[in-house]
Amino acid sequence: MDDKRLTAQLAFLVELDRMKTIERQSPIYAGGRRENDAEHSWHIAVMAMVLREYAAEPVDMGHVLEMLTVHDLIEIYAGDTFAYDAAGNSDKAAREAASADRLYAMLPEEQGAYYRALWEEFDAMETPDARFAASLDRFQPLLSNWLNEGGTWRVHNVHPEQVYRRMEPLKTGAPKLWELADRIIRASVARGHLQ
Amino acid sequence: MDDKRLTAQLAFLVELDRMKTIERQSPIYAGGRRENDAEHSWHIAVMAMVLREYAAEPVDMGHVLEMLTVHDLIEIYAGDTFAYDAAGNSDKAAREAASADRLYAMLPEEQGAYYRALWEEFDAMETPDARFAASLDRFQPLLSNWLNEGGTWRVHNVHPEQVYRRMEPLKTGAPKLWELADRIIRASVARGHLQ
Repeated sequence: MDDKRLTAQLAFLVELDRMKTIERQSPIYAGGRRENDAEHSWHIAVMAMVLREYAAEPVDMGHVLEMLTVHDLIEIYAGDTFAYDAAGNSDKAAREAASADRLYAMLPEEQGAYYRALWEEFDAMETPDARFAASLDRFQPLLSNWLNEGGTWRVHNVHPEQVYRRMEPLKTGAPKLWELADRIIRASVARGHLQ
Repeated sequence: MDDKRLTAQLAFLVELDRMKTIERQSPIYAGGRRENDAEHSWHIAVMAMVLREYAAEPVDMGHVLEMLTVHDLIEIYAGDTFAYDAAGNSDKAAREAASADRLYAMLPEEQGAYYRALWEEFDAMETPDARFAASLDRFQPLLSNWLNEGGTWRVHNVHPEQVYRRMEPLKTGAPKLWELADRIIRASVARGHLQ
């Protein structure tokens, strides 16, 4: 191809195929295997759409969907860091920044900057859109563990306080989903799926 | 839960997990296994974002992303119909309408109608947003076959004229991608990956 710009964009989009091979800790809801990053990103996008009425503040759904679609791309080189892995999380920021440098350099400059900024906005959780987006990113694996008798909580001996900390963004991003998360955590403790 | 509306929405979102187990014909770009509907839907969403400048007409990206995120949900009960399967395609519309009836009945009425309308808009390809969305839906598996030495074209003895027919929406949805698709088809024929 003689069009450098389109060639670069296509190379980037082909590279993104790797999202389908990056396994997360959480199983798919049906159980039996782990979910990958592409599946997770898709699922939280449709969750954001269907649950938008529970956003704490008005959100721009297009912007939320763009953020959710790309929020995990940095895992292509940085890998998935389990939410409750303290050691892995200590150098997560540095690993992900290095991954972003490498990944976004594939795109035309202004486009790379645009997608990197979307990821940074998501990660900072300082805008209503990012807080709502992050709420779904936390809520989706909670449901997975709920539907899989404790799922990764049991496998990794996660404590309820850790889950409560993880669900913190829901309080300001989607309070009604936070109430539900609280109920799920308490019920999981009562059933012995979370201790 | 005492909130019927949220309960219905969650049941719907849990049901959508099935998208991760519906296999399409196309392999993932890296090869080795087939892609599922959740992965495909995510990949075309990010493609629409990155390639938006090639849309034939101005598009509302939020609306395009909503359409792409839900365009294949009807396959949850109707299954994936291979694009080049004449018999499967003869009753596709009826199977998919029945699937939509069942699936969208799970949601609060106005929400079910909203998502069903998004799917119908996508399918009709009569709006600029739908034409651009459909273009990505056609272009993404083309790249898969290109990257997998003919992929499903070889497996199913697909003819170039069938592929050209399948790529038709790109002409009016994303002309620059259509030119590229044409080049890929000709190169695939030259390499013996499409005959």
